[in-house]
Amino acid sequence: MSLVVFPFKEEDPEVLLRNVEVALEHPRVSEVLCVGASEDRCFEVTSAEAPSLVRRYGKPVKVILQERLGELRPGKGDGMNTALKYLLEETDHDRVHFYDADIVSFSAEWITKAEEAADEGYQVVRHYFPRSSTDAMITWMITRTGFSLLWPRSVLPWIEQPLGGELLLSREAAERLFSDPRVRRQSDWGIDTLYTFSMVAHRLSISEIYMDVGKLHKLYGALTDLKTMLIECFSALRSLKHEHVPEGTVHHIEYPGPVRQEMKEKVGYDFERTLLLLRKGWTERQADLLSLFPARVREGMLASREYPRFAFMDEETWAEVYAVLLAHFDSGDDDWKELLFKLWITRVLQYTTTVALRGYDYAMHYLHQMVARYVHRALVGGSTV
Amino acid sequence: MSLVVFPFKEEDPEVLLRNVEVALEHPRVSEVLCVGASEDRCFEVTSAEAPSLVRRYGKPVKVILQERLGELRPGKGDGMNTALKYLLEETDHDRVHFYDADIVSFSAEWITKAEEAADEGYQVVRHYFPRSSTDAMITWMITRTGFSLLWPRSVLPWIEQPLGGELLLSREAAERLFSDPRVRRQSDWGIDTLYTFSMVAHRLSISEIYMDVGKLHKLYGALTDLKTMLIECFSALRSLKHEHVPEGTVHHIEYPGPVRQEMKEKVGYDFERTLLLLRKGWTERQADLLSLFPARVREGMLASREYPRFAFMDEETWAEVYAVLLAHFDSGDDDWKELLFKLWITRVLQYTTTVALRGYDYAMHYLHQMVARYVHRALVGGSTV
Amino acid sequence: MSLVVFPFKEEDPEVLLRNVEVALEHPRVSEVLCVGASEDRCFEVTSAEAPSLVRRYGKPVKVILQERLGELRPGKGDGMNTALKYLLEETDHDRVHFYDADIVSFSAEWITKAEEAADEGYQVVRHYFPRSSTDAMITWMITRTGFSLLWPRSVLPWIEQPLGGELLLSREAAERLFSDPRVRRQSDWGIDTLYTFSMVAHRLSISEIYMDVGKLHKLYGALTDLKTMLIECFSALRSLKHEHVPEGTVHHIEYPGPVRQEMKEKVGYDFERTLLLLRKGWTERQADLLSLFPARVREGMLASREYPRFAFMDEETWAEVYAVLLAHFDSGDDDWKELLFKLWITRVLQYTTTVALRGYDYAMHYLHQMVARYVHRALVGGSTV
Amino acid sequence: MSLVVFPFKEEDPEVLLRNVEVALEHPRVSEVLCVGASEDRCFEVTSAEAPSLVRRYGKPVKVILQERLGELRPGKGDGMNTALKYLLEETDHDRVHFYDADIVSFSAEWITKAEEAADEGYQVVRHYFPRSSTDAMITWMITRTGFSLLWPRSVLPWIEQPLGGELLLSREAAERLFSDPRVRRQSDWGIDTLYTFSMVAHRLSISEIYMDVGKLHKLYGALTDLKTMLIECFSALRSLKHEHVPEGTVHHIEYPGPVRQEMKEKVGYDFERTLLLLRKGWTERQADLLSLFPARVREGMLASREYPRFAFMDEETWAEVYAVLLAHFDSGDDDWKELLFKLWITRVLQYTTTVALRGYDYAMHYLHQMVARYVHRALVGGSTV
Repeated sequence: MSLVVFPFKEEDPEVLLRNVEVALEHPRVSEVLCVGASEDRCFEVTSAEAPSLVRRYGKPVKVILQERLGELRPGKGDGMNTALKYLLEETDHDRVHFYDADIVSFSAEWITKAEEAADEGYQVVRHYFPRSSTDAMITWMITRTGFSLLWPRSVLPWIEQPLGGELLLSREAAERLFSDPRVRRQSDWGIDTLYTFSMVAHRLSISEIYMDVGKLHKLYGALTDLKTMLIECFSALRSLKHEHVPEGTVHHIEYPGPVRQEMKEKVGYDFERTLLLLRKGWTERQADLLSLFPARVREGMLASREYPRFAFMDEETWAEVYAVLLAHFDSGDDDWKELLFKLWITRVLQYTTTVALRGYDYAMHYLHQMVARYVHRALVGGSTV
Repeated sequence: MSLVVFPFKEEDPEVLLRNVEVALEHPRVSEVLCVGASEDRCFEVTSAEAPSLVRRYGKPVKVILQERLGELRPGKGDGMNTALKYLLEETDHDRVHFYDADIVSFSAEWITKAEEAADEGYQVVRHYFPRSSTDAMITWMITRTGFSLLWPRSVLPWIEQPLGGELLLSREAAERLFSDPRVRRQSDWGIDTLYTFSMVAHRLSISEIYMDVGKLHKLYGALTDLKTMLIECFSALRSLKHEHVPEGTVHHIEYPGPVRQEMKEKVGYDFERTLLLLRKGWTERQADLLSLFPARVREGMLASREYPRFAFMDEETWAEVYAVLLAHFDSGDDDWKELLFKLWITRVLQYTTTVALRGYDYAMHYLHQMVARYVHRALVGGSTV
Repeated sequence: MSLVVFPFKEEDPEVLLRNVEVALEHPRVSEVLCVGASEDRCFEVTSAEAPSLVRRYGKPVKVILQERLGELRPGKGDGMNTALKYLLEETDHDRVHFYDADIVSFSAEWITKAEEAADEGYQVVRHYFPRSSTDAMITWMITRTGFSLLWPRSVLPWIEQPLGGELLLSREAAERLFSDPRVRRQSDWGIDTLYTFSMVAHRLSISEIYMDVGKLHKLYGALTDLKTMLIECFSALRSLKHEHVPEGTVHHIEYPGPVRQEMKEKVGYDFERTLLLLRKGWTERQADLLSLFPARVREGMLASREYPRFAFMDEETWAEVYAVLLAHFDSGDDDWKELLFKLWITRVLQYTTTVALRGYDYAMHYLHQMVARYVHRALVGGSTV
Repeated sequence: MSLVVFPFKEEDPEVLLRNVEVALEHPRVSEVLCVGASEDRCFEVTSAEAPSLVRRYGKPVKVILQERLGELRPGKGDGMNTALKYLLEETDHDRVHFYDADIVSFSAEWITKAEEAADEGYQVVRHYFPRSSTDAMITWMITRTGFSLLWPRSVLPWIEQPLGGELLLSREAAERLFSDPRVRRQSDWGIDTLYTFSMVAHRLSISEIYMDVGKLHKLYGALTDLKTMLIECFSALRSLKHEHVPEGTVHHIEYPGPVRQEMKEKVGYDFERTLLLLRKGWTERQADLLSLFPARVREGMLASREYPRFAFMDEETWAEVYAVLLAHFDSGDDDWKELLFKLWITRVLQYTTTVALRGYDYAMHYLHQMVARYVHRALVGGSTV
């Protein structure tokens, strides 16, 4: 039987409670755990409701505060790790599911499909779903790019949504992850990167299952909203750059279904507001740091102070930028953080105007091929044919 | 039997000659006429080859220079009108076809489909074909927008490609067009607008036929290439603003086929290079002229001198801009021309980043609905429901 | 202000009442009329609820029985004509809307879009919507085919959903239709054909508006369910074959939007159960009647008694079959009715296995081109190019 | 450097020679080998041309007859194995490519993409490409179904085109395959199944690369053309049913690109002609053999002698049929062969009318999910959630 965990922070308690009930109704679920980031209103409302849910469904429902387990900014990582600790120390459930608390499209099917894949013997089951062609820009440009360049022989580059927060772990998988000090330490947004990395590093078998319905959530305005997430995801990945990852992980991806027209039409961020970010927040030091980068990058970025430039930041250039960032980025340095942000925005704008503009199907094909080309580059270098 | 006309100017003579042969081979064609803008190399090569084509196909092939018939810049208008004059004064063919000299996808089917529609009794047959969602921006933002706002009860707004240069005219239709002094006068790029306008003004019956293969031609770099065409198309349309157009024209549009993935993926222009045009060529006078426009337009355009702004130029705003341009634009004034160009670029960028980015199918639906909303606006004003 | 009419017969009263409320809430609606085919349960429930709706919305809600106005089987025709009579004799509303009582996707937008089109001056507004490629087989193979062959110069062939029951009529249009004895007479399923025919015959201006949401209704099992409808629709059309229809009707079709994947995936009927119908119900007389048809039709149909044959019934053959049916069909003769049914099934099977099997986009293109080819055939005969 | 092999049998020598030249031009290719099934005209023409190709390209071109190496019907298996023998005994090339001799869309890219994947370290590279939704019915219903039911934990079920004849083997992989007596024995159409099986059984690392252009070849009429292939593919698979296949093979599938509309519209076989096969060739013994199958299968198949029945042969029923075939089929028995053929046709018809009819995207999703469900069934049984 399984434990279902909802980490949460300032969510709409109505959505969370509805999702808790969906979980409680499921025959494979024997307990639900809500882990709050702080004693906010959602925490209070959910705590107050828990007892009546327990009575109604005859299953335990806990609402707890996340512990301070890691070493970085206290965030989602502490929340998820708190849940693993609870699972391992307080219960004997065979499996644990994680779901973000704000999924409005949550249903029994999310749990069923994960349990069915686990029944086949997979130690980890990851949900994935269609996303708009201009959404998921940290996933593609930071995480999958980095996984490809650093560990091209592993399955890491091929994991569809390495930052996804919806997943199932067998108890054994949970033990392996929780016992990895690299995972425990990662208290911030980097936790998803670390879970993914660690499950591959520990050779856990992975099944990715396709949720056609997707994970409805609101889109971003300017990409500013994502700045902290970007920095923590990149920093997490960079902190692992000297680690070894074995080959041969069992990894199965469910074949995706036709994508709804509605999803194909979604735009992930506000173009003009994002463009304006290229002009802001420059310091002399950032300009100096640009001397570490290839000339066309330095010149392009500096020119953007006057009028936007992004066409130069193509796939090849981004690989070179990424190498410099892996070598020199300093996550404690505000100028590096701002520069990373601007470089990434520049890459996203180049991609948007030359790739995403060609339509959803083209863009999805491009992004997957981009990963394959980065893997090829890391393994073989440029083509010699 | 029919005359086929290829107006040309500095084209690849190989393409032109191949197309001439396609026409000569067609059983419905009894003569081919090539009308050159000047005695350029294409003119020389084609003239030299004509006699052997005459021998081979046993049909007349003429290569002539366009006459000076109009009053504006000598251009495509003189070329097409020269062909009409030739048809009416020198021949007794029943029908005339026009094809641009540079269509590499030209085939007998273009002629056959047009003849078949004419056989049904249509006086005018217009070819139309799928175009990329960021192509045809003069057609959508200038011509179809203007037709909708000025003659909402006529069929003008609904003509799929009002600037298309591939069409068939019955002899009677050719007479009506050629006898219209508004048409004769229009020697420049405005000729397509005038032909379309005039065929509706004269209540000629129109069939639009769908050419799945499309008209392959190279795409533009920055939109600069289109500046003259933009200005002449808008000026032509503006010159007609007080003219009356009757309702009730017979107008049939062939149902379009599925669009090839390749076409859906095309990008019509270079985004970054076009963006940079917003910064260039400003004069004090242009800034002054902006006072004629709504405040948000004035402010947005002026701000673009520092950093690009275009999100404000939505469909509603463009209608207001268009009204000001209809009232005040002066085609003899370089500042007005430059300002029109920048306003149009701003509209195109707004459309590209909020509509075209959503994919081909969404964009095509949007553009057609935009026309319908402009028609509704002109007929009824804002919705009162 | 407008009257909204729901004709009904044994519908789910909950759906009907919900739709009545949607109509009552609309600012453009001043009265709702439900016309029942008989005093069934739906009639009783709706009648009982009407007074409280009147109180709640402050607008009249009438539930009446349809009168016997026509001469054929008492059916939907009497229902719709009863509503016209009510409108013209009992009220002074400017416009009347008809909606089928069972549309579960009904919303204010259906009314709003129709009113907006009427505001532009159209006398008739017809709703149309995406349908599955194997649905609408009476529309395509009977009605649009017949309109094309009989009145190729009119707009009849181009009306997207000539059997659609969702439409708006201006008071003037309603008067014209109701005063037409051909319309009054048509008390059965043929009424939709007659309304469409009559609005074109009377040169009423028509706007077809696109409802993206579609009209959700259950699909058919074997095509038996449609037998009566098929026969009445064909008979209605055949009864008009000597009538004259003028050209030049104003007819505008709203550009359709992208079709949802879900609709593209729908199958309209049960293939195997329909196939089995080819074997059943044969009489000697039917075999004799087949001698009126071309040899390949006669042989194919007779062979189907042993094992199914349908590949022969292509577009060209169907046109020949249609001509024989127009000449000889007798709606009072059961063998003719059964034979029409089998011939139509054969056509539908041929279309399904060679066209619909190629996918939604291909099929929609084919069907529209088929209409165009039938029009061409009627106007010009086979191609002479 | 690589050897390129074209096995051939009665092909158009022009196509073969063109493909040989494409191979010879490629910088990674140092020799081309054509293996003929017999001394047919293609063999003669190709042999005659070889010397001039050798002179022109300065690389060896051999045209040889296939040896008798196997134990079953002499066919494609002997041809491919002859090439392996040649590679290993006569040359020291590092890699060998196989391409069917009749691919009209063959180009340097086929070789380049395979070499690039091999450069990444893969021992086997398999080309795959989009196929029509009603094509590949042996692959889906026989091979992938069988792989799923028999070896659900291996990667066999997930190989996109297990019967594909376009592939690259490293020398080491070629040695492993050629040294496997199960492979050597398989002289007939079963060879593709054996190569695929053997490469997984030997844990060779496999990369599947996507050829967008596809492998153009003519489609089938009635499915009769495929009868021998069907029987040999099923027999080959059945002969392996007691073999063990290990887990953990490295297997990567290149992400597929958008599929051309043209491919989505293709129909793989003639429906009516195939339907008629259900009626033919019945014997008493076949009727008796049906008693081994579930009642609904027996009854349905017998009924098809009178009028076609196929709706009963759904996914679940096919799994039951497949189990009976694995247990009882006898490849030396003509009645079993005919019965297998009819059962498979019945499955294909059911799939065509309920799945393929829903469109390409739906069908591809269905087929992949079907494999996943068969794997789940073999691993876990029916869902227990």
